[in-house]
Amino acid sequence: MRFVTFSSRQGGKDHGQARLGVLHDDLVIDLERFGACVGLALPSTMLDFIDMGPAAVRVVATALETLDDATRIACAVPVDNVALLAPIPRPRKNIFGIGLNYTEHVAESARALDTANALPSEPVIFSKPPTAVVAWDHPVHHDAAITQQLDWETELGVVIGRTARRVAEQDALDHVFGYTVINDISARDCRRAGQWIVSKGQDTFAPMGPCIVTTDEIGDPHALNLATYVNGVEKQNSNTRFMLFNVNRIIADISRVMTLEPGDIIATGTPAGVGAGRTPQEFMWPGDVVESVIEGIGALRNPIIAI
Amino acid sequence: MRFVTFSSRQGGKDHGQARLGVLHDDLVIDLERFGACVGLALPSTMLDFIDMGPAAVRVVATALETLDDATRIACAVPVDNVALLAPIPRPRKNIFGIGLNYTEHVAESARALDTANALPSEPVIFSKPPTAVVAWDHPVHHDAAITQQLDWETELGVVIGRTARRVAEQDALDHVFGYTVINDISARDCRRAGQWIVSKGQDTFAPMGPCIVTTDEIGDPHALNLATYVNGVEKQNSNTRFMLFNVNRIIADISRVMTLEPGDIIATGTPAGVGAGRTPQEFMWPGDVVESVIEGIGALRNPIIAI
Repeated sequence: MRFVTFSSRQGGKDHGQARLGVLHDDLVIDLERFGACVGLALPSTMLDFIDMGPAAVRVVATALETLDDATRIACAVPVDNVALLAPIPRPRKNIFGIGLNYTEHVAESARALDTANALPSEPVIFSKPPTAVVAWDHPVHHDAAITQQLDWETELGVVIGRTARRVAEQDALDHVFGYTVINDISARDCRRAGQWIVSKGQDTFAPMGPCIVTTDEIGDPHALNLATYVNGVEKQNSNTRFMLFNVNRIIADISRVMTLEPGDIIATGTPAGVGAGRTPQEFMWPGDVVESVIEGIGALRNPIIAI
Repeated sequence: MRFVTFSSRQGGKDHGQARLGVLHDDLVIDLERFGACVGLALPSTMLDFIDMGPAAVRVVATALETLDDATRIACAVPVDNVALLAPIPRPRKNIFGIGLNYTEHVAESARALDTANALPSEPVIFSKPPTAVVAWDHPVHHDAAITQQLDWETELGVVIGRTARRVAEQDALDHVFGYTVINDISARDCRRAGQWIVSKGQDTFAPMGPCIVTTDEIGDPHALNLATYVNGVEKQNSNTRFMLFNVNRIIADISRVMTLEPGDIIATGTPAGVGAGRTPQEFMWPGDVVESVIEGIGALRNPIIAI
């Protein structure tokens, strides 16, 4: 299933509270209302739903199989009539980011930035605060007083569904709720003593969406094409099978020392083709539009604006 | 005032829900109950209280001036009868940490670790997840399979009280709710490609407490002695006036690119005397007890245990 967080849109403006929905053809079904129609207690936010555990996904899937016209009219709206928000508009902790996780990107980073050319022997982890998260179509801020090197990084986002502490690699995917698209926006000239949080954690630097696709719909997270387009021109094009540390390994590795909790988000690293790694280098400027696309999940498009 | 989060203790075991309290001589006054006694709507958690804004601190201070015996009996317990929890047991995002923020510590780090000897030109920022936070007296985990270099870092913790976005240095302290003690526990051998989150973000690596002292009681946060004792032996002894970037500058700097929110916590860096910087190096092992003390705030003591 494809879960979204949305608000009803009225008069051309985003309007109304954030609501949890599930995409069903070209409709968004309001999950809490749907639950009321069919006698299930379902929440109105993504995090509350994730907290219900994996059984809740199966219950909703089964209930939706018998969706009738009356229920559809009572609890669904056309997707064109809503504004999609970030699937988790406000994570409960910083997003975990994995650096240097595609071989070719390690090489381009070593050429262009201050990182080593050797492949990392363990996942390289950093974080992006909840305040960085923005929705599909929400502007990414370009502050020319802060950066002249605003860059893109399309990444598979993993949303944790069950508490993970010292999880074995072979069991790791049992702890995943679903997958989303994250653009790990990076101001290359804002790194400090090698630490990346100022480079990657600024407000609006974590576009996320358009939806979370649950694991039942994505059999293998390591066989997904992912690509980036800036103003419609392809900049990155790879596949998640080229990850240096796959999702199993990343979850096992983080959970070895830090408890992963339901609703936690991991951005799993970006392939080659970032702006800093190109010759000549390319960066994003106000007026540009960046689009991150992952097979089976969707497209996440964001304009760049000056602030 | 000195705010704590506590639970009532019964039969030698910690027991009961986390409650917000204020220290008053050798008593802890349960703030929600106190409010009920005097006709004020006061919350039961620190974050909810911080969200009420600076006026709430003044209202409580004024109300406490007329605390009578009946009210004391109704809403106070001896501090010896409660368990002190971390003042903010579950922050809403990762704790911000500032690295290399005391001159002598920059020098010892350059000698012993992989950091540069030059003083940073801007604050060096990293993060510690909410899952790292533990209370006064709670054990810090030593996992011998993960680290042989468990180190201490006593730091002044700044708790944000009002949203700060692009705040000027001279206005920065208006955005502070209060101050606490944080031990920025660091496994020196867990750094990865220069990123510190695995080294500093492990479960139990952010002891915090014993209380938050509000700004009305700490006039100048840059004139506080701070010290560390391991098994009673002094290891660090300095003063916050030796910070390279003071609290004003740190808040101005972070808020330039990341919105600081009520309840956010900043660990402002540690002075010289960490174990990695000593000759020969010293680290902590199961059975050790580490104590972080800051003048005007209190002592934060934690045992090290094997896991």
